[in-house]
This record gives sequence, C-alpha cells and structure tokens, in this order.
Amino acid sequence: MALDEYQLIERLRRRAAAGLDASVRVGIGDDTAVVAPPRSGEETLLTTDQVIENTHFVNHAHPPDALGHKCLARGLSDIAAMGGRPRHFLLSLCVPAWASEKAWMEAFCRGLFRLSSSAGVALVGGDVARSDRFAAHVTVVGSVAKGKAVRRDGARIGDIVCLSGQLGGSWLGYERLRKQGSGQPDPAVQRHLFPEPRLALGRLLQRRLAATAAIDISDGLSRDLGRLTEGSGVGVEIQAANIPRFPGATLDQALHGGEEYELLFTVPPGVRVPRRSAGVPLTAIGVIHARRQVVLVSEGRRSRLRPCGYEHLSG
Amino acid sequence: MALDEYQLIERLRRRAAAGLDASVRVGIGDDTAVVAPPRSGEETLLTTDQVIENTHFVNHAHPPDALGHKCLARGLSDIAAMGGRPRHFLLSLCVPAWASEKAWMEAFCRGLFRLSSSAGVALVGGDVARSDRFAAHVTVVGSVAKGKAVRRDGARIGDIVCLSGQLGGSWLGYERLRKQGSGQPDPAVQRHLFPEPRLALGRLLQRRLAATAAIDISDGLSRDLGRLTEGSGVGVEIQAANIPRFPGATLDQALHGGEEYELLFTVPPGVRVPRRSAGVPLTAIGVIHARRQVVLVSEGRRSRLRPCGYEHLSG
Repeated sequence: MALDEYQLIERLRRRAAAGLDASVRVGIGDDTAVVAPPRSGEETLLTTDQVIENTHFVNHAHPPDALGHKCLARGLSDIAAMGGRPRHFLLSLCVPAWASEKAWMEAFCRGLFRLSSSAGVALVGGDVARSDRFAAHVTVVGSVAKGKAVRRDGARIGDIVCLSGQLGGSWLGYERLRKQGSGQPDPAVQRHLFPEPRLALGRLLQRRLAATAAIDISDGLSRDLGRLTEGSGVGVEIQAANIPRFPGATLDQALHGGEEYELLFTVPPGVRVPRRSAGVPLTAIGVIHARRQVVLVSEGRRSRLRPCGYEHLSG
Repeated sequence: MALDEYQLIERLRRRAAAGLDASVRVGIGDDTAVVAPPRSGEETLLTTDQVIENTHFVNHAHPPDALGHKCLARGLSDIAAMGGRPRHFLLSLCVPAWASEKAWMEAFCRGLFRLSSSAGVALVGGDVARSDRFAAHVTVVGSVAKGKAVRRDGARIGDIVCLSGQLGGSWLGYERLRKQGSGQPDPAVQRHLFPEPRLALGRLLQRRLAATAAIDISDGLSRDLGRLTEGSGVGVEIQAANIPRFPGATLDQALHGGEEYELLFTVPPGVRVPRRSAGVPLTAIGVIHARRQVVLVSEGRRSRLRPCGYEHLSG
C-alpha cells in the first residue's frame, strides 16, 4: 500500500506528537514551527545534513530503519561535536514510489523515532515532495551555554589529541554489507548502519574537560584531523599504534574510513581524560605541534598523513 | 569550469560573509553554526523547504538566478505568514555535474544572495553533496514575539478573509515560460520566477491588524483556503468577482494556481485593513461562517470550491 502526501505527513505528525514537550508551541501543520528560545544564557546551534540515494546509500543494501536512524544521527553528531544539547529537528523527504510504500515508511520512521526519542529531540516540522530519488534532509536545532561551544579552531600547541570509540568499523561494515547484505547479524554491519552520536561525551567535553577543539569523524580521521588542525593553525603527530581499531578493521580503514561519528578532540596537557564516557572508550592518540603538518608515526617511521576520505563532487 | 566541493563551499562562505551580523557567533565551517538566541520575549520560528529538479522545476526552463531566489523565497514566505522576522538560514545542495559549472553556480548565488540581503537574513551553514538531480533545501530560522505568531487555526465566525496581491500570475507565467522560455521580458514569467515573500505585510498582520489567522498561498487559493478553514474549524464564503487576478490570468488560474506566495489572512470584522501594504494591494474576498464548507459565489451562483492545487506524491 502506498501512502499519499497527506497520509505520510499524518503518520509523521502522530509519531512526532509522542516526543513533543512544553518547548514546542506549534509543531507540524502550520507554516512554521514555533519553539521556545533556548534557556537564558544559552545560544542556538544549527546544522543540516542530507542522506541521498546513490550518494550516501544504495536502496537494496540499506534497510529503511537504518536510513531513518542515520539521517538524524548525522546532525546529532554535529551537535555533540560542539558540546551542545539537541532540542528540535526538521525533516524534508524526497519520496520515490518505492519509499511511499507503507511497510518501508513504517520501518524508516521506526529507526528515526527510536533515535529521536533516546536523544530527547522533537520533530517539529518538515516537507514532503515526490522525486525519482530518495533523499532525507534533517536540520537539527540545539543549544549550548553562551560562548562555550567547542569549536574546531581552538587546538593549541601541546594539547593532547583524543578519540572516542574505535575506528574503521563503518568502512568494514559497508564492505560486508555490500557482499552479504544486512540479513546476518554482524557487529561491523551494525556499526555502519546504526552509528551512535556521542552526545553525552560532547557535553562532558564542554562542561568538564575544558576541551579546546572538537570535530566528529564523518569523512575519515585523516581528513577531519586535517580540518581541526588547519582550522586551529597548528599541526599534529599521532601514533598509529594508539588508534583504537574496530575488530577486523585495517589501519587504512581506521585512518580513512568515513561515517564513524566518533569525536576527535583536544584537551590541554594537564587535563585528566577519563578512560570511558557513557561506556565508550576514550584514547589519547597524539599531540598538537606547531608545524602545520599531520604526521603519522607507524613502526618507528614518521610520514605525512594525507587526507583521503570521501569528497563529494570530486570523489 | 566545474567547481569541486571545497571551491563551492568557499564561494558560498565568501558570499555569506557579506551578510553576517553580530548575531552570528560561528558561521559556515564548523560542525554547526552558533547564533544568538532571539531577543528577550521572543520565540523561535523554524521552517524547511525544498526545490527539486523535475518536481518543482525543469532545468532547461528555469534560469539559475530564479532558482536561487525561489529556494529561499519559500521559507521566507512561511516566516511572513506567521508574522515573524527571518534571521538565519541553512542551505543544502544536491549538485549534479551541470550545476557545478562556475557560471551556473554564480548565477544561482546571485539570485539567492540578492534576496537574502534584501530580507536581512544570513546564511550560516549547510551541506553540499553530489547527486544526479539538482535539489536545494533551505531551512529558515526566524523569531516572533512570544505567543504572537499568526497561526492557521485562529479564524472565527464573522472574520473578514483578505488576500495580498493578485493571483494566477504564477501559473500563467509558468505556461508562458514553457512555451517561450525566459528570454523575453514578461510580467507573468517574472512573477513565476521571482515571487516576493510578503515579510512587511506579515509583521503588519501580527502587530497592527490583530489578524486571527494567516497562511501563504503555496499550493493554490482553493487548497490553502481549505487548510486555513479546516485548521480553524470553520468555513468560508468568498466572492469570485472580488479575487484580484493577475493581468491575463483566468479565474481557474487564480483559484487553483500554486507558488503565489501571497498571504491569505483573516481579521475581526471591526478591523480596518489598509488598501496597500508596502505597495501590495490588500483585498477582502469573503467572510468566515460556521458551516464547514468553502463556498464560492460566482455570477450569483453559490457552489462548493474543491481544492485542486498540486499535491505531491499523488499529483
């Protein structure tokens, strides 16, 4: 059974209603949503991300609940990387015929609202249009204490570079997914399909660890580490042996694999970083230095680490 | 010459920089934008809209500056319909090869930033991805005095129904555009390509006219009038002879044509509505009544007006 625009919006509205709180004055159904401003002393965070068929996923390989999860996870991860708290989100869907089938859309919504519920973020509006390719566009609105957002450009010489979780699992999972599909339970495939935004860690960075910079790893450690150091006008030396790898992942997968959504962050040398945050291991992998290069130390050899994560438009 | 992702984002960032004000703490280039909260006593408005190739436009007929204009105009029109003030926007682009050509993208940006500049709204973030179809997704963030947003659901029996501008021009212009292209100057084609969000009127409705309800006409008068009256739990009787028509437009085009972005609003019977707002004529076209029907009076005959604007997914 295919859903028309009205039925689809009604479905989203009903599911969204369960997540609404007093901050939502007007939700789905008017020209705009109306939401309460952030708490006194807070600023607003804004981020938008897209998940596009044949660019970010292929329909036959990606289960709909994983897509629902991922299209929101990307924006939540951005909020986490600023040390913020997500509050509301908007969803625009481009829907081809196959995605307007009720069973498919139900599963998509299940993945989406399971994550929105656990993150405490409410769907307040969006748009639905017909298209010949599926795409989901999510805007997440969050908040953070005034002047306290953890930016990319604050890393200083001598800061320790740390990482949450283990890397390489998303790339490994993607390869297995293409070979064997999503039918069999496989930790790497799960890792690729259901990345966890590190919201608790983001708040810890901002409130307790005096983090000087942070970024989430969406395009690969090599590329995102380059962004953080370039943004801060510094360089870095990291130890290959210290980079925590997902079981089965190669060093290349850990260095260059995208869609990890782990946080890469820097703290001043005196700060004691806990070994775990909300069950996720935190590992020091290197030190910020003055020379504007990303240097990888592997088996005693030092070499420049070139970014080779995925780049849209020229990849 | 084709732009890669980095060049395209740099171009957007440079153009955005001209429109930044003190409310933007962090703009394009970090994980999220950081913006000041709305003024004390205000709430936040959020809206998102998409402009998709082959759904909302066809590439060979629509000049790129008109697309840049339209993708922002839709969200600004939503903010206007709530009586709000737009402050910031985010832009996600899906870019096929032809749209990454420098000349095309320059023209797109010209249309986009001309409108953002005149509306006083700053681009603070976004996303760029490769795709085989062009799409632009815009989220506009605005503000309005607390509890004062003009919603769809406040129309009361006896209220006067009013309309800004003239209707039917967008449909007429679209037909002419398909026949003759955009090369020749034609007011209807201009009207279709460069709709003007009624921001000044929106604020007037909220501040001075005690408007009880408002909606912008994006899917046609018949459909959007139905939405306003259904939302308010009332009906309406409108006079065909009173509906201001764009020169050359038929009554059908005025009743059912979408993408007008005029404001349809209701005011209590005692309120004196000015004849113009910011040069745009305002016209009373009917009265709200209790019976939940949209009734059209034309040449002395009363008939129910059925919505037949464009509906996505089933159109």
